[in-house]
Amino acid sequence: MAGLNQVQRQTGVALWRQIADRIRDAISAGAYDETGMVPPETVLALQFGVNRHTVRSALAALAQEGIVRAVQGRGTLIERKDRLNFPITRRTRFTAGIGAQAREMRGLLLDHAQERADADVARWLKLRSGTGVIRLETLRLADKRPVSCATTWFPADRFAGIDEVYRKTESITKAFADLGLPDYVRATTEITAAHADSHDIATLELTPGAILLIAKAMNTDLDGVPVQYSISRFAADRVQFTIEN
Amino acid sequence: MAGLNQVQRQTGVALWRQIADRIRDAISAGAYDETGMVPPETVLALQFGVNRHTVRSALAALAQEGIVRAVQGRGTLIERKDRLNFPITRRTRFTAGIGAQAREMRGLLLDHAQERADADVARWLKLRSGTGVIRLETLRLADKRPVSCATTWFPADRFAGIDEVYRKTESITKAFADLGLPDYVRATTEITAAHADSHDIATLELTPGAILLIAKAMNTDLDGVPVQYSISRFAADRVQFTIEN
Repeated sequence: MAGLNQVQRQTGVALWRQIADRIRDAISAGAYDETGMVPPETVLALQFGVNRHTVRSALAALAQEGIVRAVQGRGTLIERKDRLNFPITRRTRFTAGIGAQAREMRGLLLDHAQERADADVARWLKLRSGTGVIRLETLRLADKRPVSCATTWFPADRFAGIDEVYRKTESITKAFADLGLPDYVRATTEITAAHADSHDIATLELTPGAILLIAKAMNTDLDGVPVQYSISRFAADRVQFTIEN
Repeated sequence: MAGLNQVQRQTGVALWRQIADRIRDAISAGAYDETGMVPPETVLALQFGVNRHTVRSALAALAQEGIVRAVQGRGTLIERKDRLNFPITRRTRFTAGIGAQAREMRGLLLDHAQERADADVARWLKLRSGTGVIRLETLRLADKRPVSCATTWFPADRFAGIDEVYRKTESITKAFADLGLPDYVRATTEITAAHADSHDIATLELTPGAILLIAKAMNTDLDGVPVQYSISRFAADRVQFTIEN
């Protein structure tokens, strides 16, 4: 198995990031279950053929993700084995989806604007280009850790004031209910992945080179009329999507 | 919009890759629909604040992905606007899923082995650890371009010889039918993203630093008995997943 541990220089991906990825995978696969701890830095440095500083950077990144925690005089404890699981179903709800995996879920309104739908937004919301829409920029946190940031558009005439209601309720579901839409369903989700840009790196507290899972999603009311289109950028290190058919 | 064009140095992601990502997004958003061509290298170099060599590397990567094609004396033509779309449904089939988006679909058997199920494989296939399974390593191509490589496990007693049948038919669906399973359904899919390792970079003809969309999937027969567990690594630049609810 030695070959699998080899990291590569000159790949365009920093060594510490490659090692963080390997350690995260090993934790997730249960490799350290017996001790509940990551091997000592010197052992990992030997295993990966790098120096201790590189290993330390990798462990610092995993600590920032909430996966491990350094304990003075003891070593590096494993705090969380798996990514947060985000189910994609007809009943997809952000807070309920993360559910019991976090004690505290928050949704922060970072910015909002009233604007005219461009071609992409109009296509997803089945509106004419130029129709008034409300755009929200939001940040979701689970136990104070950023999970995703999202750009979301709503038809402006139907959901006037949703920015203020979201700011207070921190929930799209509650904001819809407040504005007269008691129920809605997920119609379509498109999933891609990309490197995070500088803005998302800052907002999600990521490190350079980090990967995003990007979900473009459209929700409708129970009559099938689009009520919401969003582009959510999830920190790929912290989240996985599941689809049950 | 100038801010969106800025690329960042020292992010751990090569400049040419960042620029390739920006151009791919612009193509996908229809920014160059009027001409059907990417702007000249000198224009792009000015726009992104980099030299022409960096732009050339970005365009070479997009050419390798099949998104653009350089034409002597004319410039860089847009060949394909969008990623291949891979629907995830209860009826997920690889070839049918890509369907009309490619003229030729191939599935190559790279390697195979009979082995004992480890804890992960056993859990997904609902077998005891150590039960005999057949492992296939496969590569999927659409119009000769690598789309994904997959590691797939089948219960050995039920699907003896599936390696040979797959080699001939290049299709899991046909291999199942040959071995007495006329129909099957997708039960569970887990989606994550990660940087490609050296092996997948070589197999999928990727460039260093490339991202994979990784789908862990389990299929069952119509009685709900697991028949297949696979870990498929898709070139994130070439594919998106869609879920319709």
